[in-house]
Amino acid sequence: MNRTKFSDEQLLAVAQQLLSQINQKQEQSAEKKIPVGISNRHIHLCQQDLETLFGKGFELTRKNYLSQPGQFAAAQTVTVVGLKGTIHNVRVLGPVRSESQLEISRSDSFQLGIKAPTNESGDLTNAGSALIVGPIGSVQLKQNVIIAKRHIHMTPEDAQRFEVVQGDAVAIKTVGERQAVFYNTLVRISDRYRLECHLDTDEANAAGLANKNTFVEIVKDN
Amino acid sequence: MNRTKFSDEQLLAVAQQLLSQINQKQEQSAEKKIPVGISNRHIHLCQQDLETLFGKGFELTRKNYLSQPGQFAAAQTVTVVGLKGTIHNVRVLGPVRSESQLEISRSDSFQLGIKAPTNESGDLTNAGSALIVGPIGSVQLKQNVIIAKRHIHMTPEDAQRFEVVQGDAVAIKTVGERQAVFYNTLVRISDRYRLECHLDTDEANAAGLANKNTFVEIVKDN
Repeated sequence: MNRTKFSDEQLLAVAQQLLSQINQKQEQSAEKKIPVGISNRHIHLCQQDLETLFGKGFELTRKNYLSQPGQFAAAQTVTVVGLKGTIHNVRVLGPVRSESQLEISRSDSFQLGIKAPTNESGDLTNAGSALIVGPIGSVQLKQNVIIAKRHIHMTPEDAQRFEVVQGDAVAIKTVGERQAVFYNTLVRISDRYRLECHLDTDEANAAGLANKNTFVEIVKDN
Repeated sequence: MNRTKFSDEQLLAVAQQLLSQINQKQEQSAEKKIPVGISNRHIHLCQQDLETLFGKGFELTRKNYLSQPGQFAAAQTVTVVGLKGTIHNVRVLGPVRSESQLEISRSDSFQLGIKAPTNESGDLTNAGSALIVGPIGSVQLKQNVIIAKRHIHMTPEDAQRFEVVQGDAVAIKTVGERQAVFYNTLVRISDRYRLECHLDTDEANAAGLANKNTFVEIVKDN
């Protein structure tokens, strides 16, 4: 050890520079984190299907707000019947939409015996069919069942920060014992959105993710 | 076009070199591919539990051989009962083992209401409990339920080729619309094994994989 080589002032200056760099790195890293929301199977209903299932003039009751502004989980649930299986207690999300859309996982699709494509929400191209049962009646959905494509909701400001544009397909990396990278994660941008990466239960369980305090980062393709 | 610049012999020589290089690349690539086997929930039984469930002196009937030498799917199934749910038709695998072991997916663990760790097969540390129901009787498994850690079975020769050793945790990359990389995939080596990467249904569905003609590759961490 040769402490006489550097003055205390010199050592302090180096230490301060190091500290400043570490803090900067941590801030940058924190800014990169994207909160994860895990989507269980759920259904969006049009007013007509809502009334067939729950009764004339029926309105959804809000159970709790979802992270995306204006969206809510309703108190109401339905039963989904496929050729191979039935799933009870499928949550209805509000508000009502112009078209009904049932979103299931790939695991659900096998359990139900329903063929469904992996589509962006709102895209019902080649969508599957299912019988939906409510307390008052049932609806045969003809082309309304999809496996939702994993995606990230973000604002235009977020998009600038992450250097992505609407429709980009990015790779996201999780942390934990079952760490994974998921490619082809769709970027969806709107000033009505809140930053959140939506994965379904298959993806979340494959990566061992919980619904609270879970974050992913966008990574470069390897 | 200026065909007089090169003789036919020269062009042929270049074409042959190109072809040889392409073939070499394809061979190398083919050698890197690891077939995927998707494990649905299943149970291994010890002789005592087998007899409690199916009757004194009962022997498993072979339905079909599995890819790992000597292992088979039995004709027998059991029902698994947890605090939150029940799953019927859970396949028994043979031959019998020294200890019973129920392997479920993380999705199953939520549906059943059974807490289970992600362990290597055979490791029942902190394993979960479940009621198993057979045609003759039932067995309360106390510490026998796990979520199987994803892993690759390979021979010592495979291990040399992939430059891995027993117990390595490698990253594997899938192909397709839902392409993913799964880290922490355990390498298990034995001359009794056949090269195969075992994923559970959560992992397979998250990556959109089918059970036939599906391959993964070991990739470097990114």
